[in-house]
Amino acid sequence: MTDTTADLITPVILCGGKGTRLWPLSRSSWPKQFLQLTGPKSLFQETLLRVSDAKRFAPPIIVTNDEYRFIVTEQAEDVGCALGAVLLEPVARNTGPALVAAALHAAGDEGEASEKLLLVLASDHELQDDAKYKNCVAAAADAARAGYLVTFGIKPTKPATGFGYIETGAELMKGVHQVARFIEKPALAEAEKMLASGNFAWNSGMFMLRTDTFLSETKTYAPDVFAAAEAAVRSAKPDLDFLRLDEADFAQSPNISVDYAVFEHTDKAAVVPADITWSDLGAWDAVWKSSGPDTDGNVLRGPATVHDTHSALIVSEGAHVTVDGLDDIAVIASPDAVFVSRLSEASRAGDMVKTLSANPETSHLTETHLTCYRPWGGYSSVLSGDRFQVKRLFVNPGKKLSLQKHHHRSEHWVVVSGSAEVTIGDEVKILAENESAYIPAGAVHRLANPGKILLELIEVQTGSYLGEDDIIRIEDEFGRS
Amino acid sequence: MTDTTADLITPVILCGGKGTRLWPLSRSSWPKQFLQLTGPKSLFQETLLRVSDAKRFAPPIIVTNDEYRFIVTEQAEDVGCALGAVLLEPVARNTGPALVAAALHAAGDEGEASEKLLLVLASDHELQDDAKYKNCVAAAADAARAGYLVTFGIKPTKPATGFGYIETGAELMKGVHQVARFIEKPALAEAEKMLASGNFAWNSGMFMLRTDTFLSETKTYAPDVFAAAEAAVRSAKPDLDFLRLDEADFAQSPNISVDYAVFEHTDKAAVVPADITWSDLGAWDAVWKSSGPDTDGNVLRGPATVHDTHSALIVSEGAHVTVDGLDDIAVIASPDAVFVSRLSEASRAGDMVKTLSANPETSHLTETHLTCYRPWGGYSSVLSGDRFQVKRLFVNPGKKLSLQKHHHRSEHWVVVSGSAEVTIGDEVKILAENESAYIPAGAVHRLANPGKILLELIEVQTGSYLGEDDIIRIEDEFGRS
Repeated sequence: MTDTTADLITPVILCGGKGTRLWPLSRSSWPKQFLQLTGPKSLFQETLLRVSDAKRFAPPIIVTNDEYRFIVTEQAEDVGCALGAVLLEPVARNTGPALVAAALHAAGDEGEASEKLLLVLASDHELQDDAKYKNCVAAAADAARAGYLVTFGIKPTKPATGFGYIETGAELMKGVHQVARFIEKPALAEAEKMLASGNFAWNSGMFMLRTDTFLSETKTYAPDVFAAAEAAVRSAKPDLDFLRLDEADFAQSPNISVDYAVFEHTDKAAVVPADITWSDLGAWDAVWKSSGPDTDGNVLRGPATVHDTHSALIVSEGAHVTVDGLDDIAVIASPDAVFVSRLSEASRAGDMVKTLSANPETSHLTETHLTCYRPWGGYSSVLSGDRFQVKRLFVNPGKKLSLQKHHHRSEHWVVVSGSAEVTIGDEVKILAENESAYIPAGAVHRLANPGKILLELIEVQTGSYLGEDDIIRIEDEFGRS
Repeated sequence: MTDTTADLITPVILCGGKGTRLWPLSRSSWPKQFLQLTGPKSLFQETLLRVSDAKRFAPPIIVTNDEYRFIVTEQAEDVGCALGAVLLEPVARNTGPALVAAALHAAGDEGEASEKLLLVLASDHELQDDAKYKNCVAAAADAARAGYLVTFGIKPTKPATGFGYIETGAELMKGVHQVARFIEKPALAEAEKMLASGNFAWNSGMFMLRTDTFLSETKTYAPDVFAAAEAAVRSAKPDLDFLRLDEADFAQSPNISVDYAVFEHTDKAAVVPADITWSDLGAWDAVWKSSGPDTDGNVLRGPATVHDTHSALIVSEGAHVTVDGLDDIAVIASPDAVFVSRLSEASRAGDMVKTLSANPETSHLTETHLTCYRPWGGYSSVLSGDRFQVKRLFVNPGKKLSLQKHHHRSEHWVVVSGSAEVTIGDEVKILAENESAYIPAGAVHRLANPGKILLELIEVQTGSYLGEDDIIRIEDEFGRS
């Protein structure tokens, strides 16, 4: 191989999960991978940055869905990472068909003969990008080039019952072992035995694959998955920067993980036992652990005060949270929802999401935040009344909303920061800070930020119906009209 | 006595407390007595209604302070109770001088010779106004007319350590006993002994007094208290419906309760043992108890969901609160603060208030709510930005704000309900729902509600300084200019 780009590894980042156990911060419209859980960057951004070295990695392929597409592109732009492709799954079918689609897209014209290396990553894990990790990736790449389908097996640090395990067999190459067998999420006693034995690793959901090996093994062991994904890629439609997989085709695939579909059947499976700092941040107790508790065992994020309290995780994006006299406690507060449980049982948040989702009066609390992001910026719901609501709109520099109208509501806009270009009917005017505009119901209008700084405005809507669906988009640069 | 009004009992309602242990709902600017803790009426309103029978009671005298004066008058008007007088304490000096001032005011021209009966009540207790209670009041009135200073002793239902106790002595009259002794808040062992003995009652802070007896005993046993209060009443200044006690005089009084000042010294003290349903609602666990827990021992108020949870009190005026897998837990949520503790230790809220008050960054959480009430209505802080803030204003029918101006902020008003009369400079205009007005910085302006329904408007303030103290009141019907 003389083409140097052929040696590059193409990352595939799976970005369609919902992360319900990190509710109420994680919501179906803005899930875990897009949250800043471990620092100023989201988990997805951290994942992008780990594969941003252009000497080692090609631009990544992201597999996500329609709802998250603009979050993906905005967050990537925000950390200056170019994306290779953004594939949109029309329906969720687990990792099996998603990876086949990503592999076929990466293979491109070479098709099933392509020898590209794919590094498959979850978008919502925490991982220390140190020498140990880099060695694991290098070993996995060597093994994948040699024709193995490689999975990363994390060295266990506790008898976790929430992961699948891999029993490691004989060493195949330096740092690469045969997979003796895959083990489902175990009971505690079995997990303890596996931890003690030293021959077992957590199944991390990270893989290194050569496209040709992966595609031919999938064709052999999961032909229906292969066929559905292959048809969905062939009929895919580009939309701005996105590639929409065909819905009718993709939906034909069984809902199956790549582990079940391929790894548990193929004799080419190999594992790189990885003694690395890794967490799937699967629930709030994992976030607590990775956040470095203080000497009382407490982690406080956002406005919080504790007294006589130990082993506590307090995360607030809303009210000032105070806790007095409790041990082993988690309090997670969004502006519109608070979750309280024992820290050691914080995965109960996932059950609470099920309870709330089943109730029409509370299901919105699992779906959306009071702040919603849009490709042009976003808005926060600030106040809702009987026949009015107040929103804070923020429009990124150079962006414009769609040309639109509403049947049932009038809007008052007051610019509080930046400048706005406001189109109402045939009239276009520039509003500076402290200036306002009125858009009567039925008027065709458009808002844009022609400036260099963020535009913020307060919108007061009045009318008999104030739902987001009262919008007629006449023209839209984000392909939504 | 042929004058029938002379037989009426004059209630004196002490309404100056801060109730910190019911934080975060109770704040120093809107404390416990004004909260709707047990039903749709506030504790103060419930207290007013218990003494609203004009055949038995004269209009009540309220002792409060400057900060609460309009809350007192608004809440009284809201339940249709006329007030006899509203005395404003210029500084807090406990119940001793407050009661002397109230007694002197009630005595009026008759002065220390007045034989008026005073029923002294806390404004923040819960009490079942049934036949048992009425009998106690009648017995106390008889004893007070006979020259006793009567205190109500509540029959204990548990070995409470948070109350003072009274040992009952020999029966003086039907249902009225000598006070054998007063006991300070006891340790648990002593409380248990007293509960078992049956001869002890909780000191409730309710009294029945004849003005002449009370004043002469105070003069004897607490002459400095008497002198300070007497001078403060003599130099008091009327202000609208209020009577402002003189600050310099009133401040001379020691800070002392009427128990310490008089009851523990006089040989005229008597006690009516009262086997009544009463609670001082001293902390959240008392609110839980009086709210009638469900079969799981839970009380939920406001948006809340619990699962696998027992003996819980959830009160929310803000976010939807969810609790999973906890027993003995209290979660109290305001829009800007959340308190979490064991329910059985919920009085820790009082300590938390001390902690938060001591920190300049959090002290506001103990002082004000996001919603502030004014004599004309009030406002809620809805959103605060760097150089802007958004408020929801509500103006009661027929009320008007002061004629005012601001140096540093401009205001945009959008009427969302009702109609507004807006004065800007020399111009007066009526705004209907969905109409707006702009008030530039420096412009003299006034807002009024000329209509029959509540006026609600959204105010967007912009400017470099947005503090409430940037207000020049030119004219005000509430005496604040």
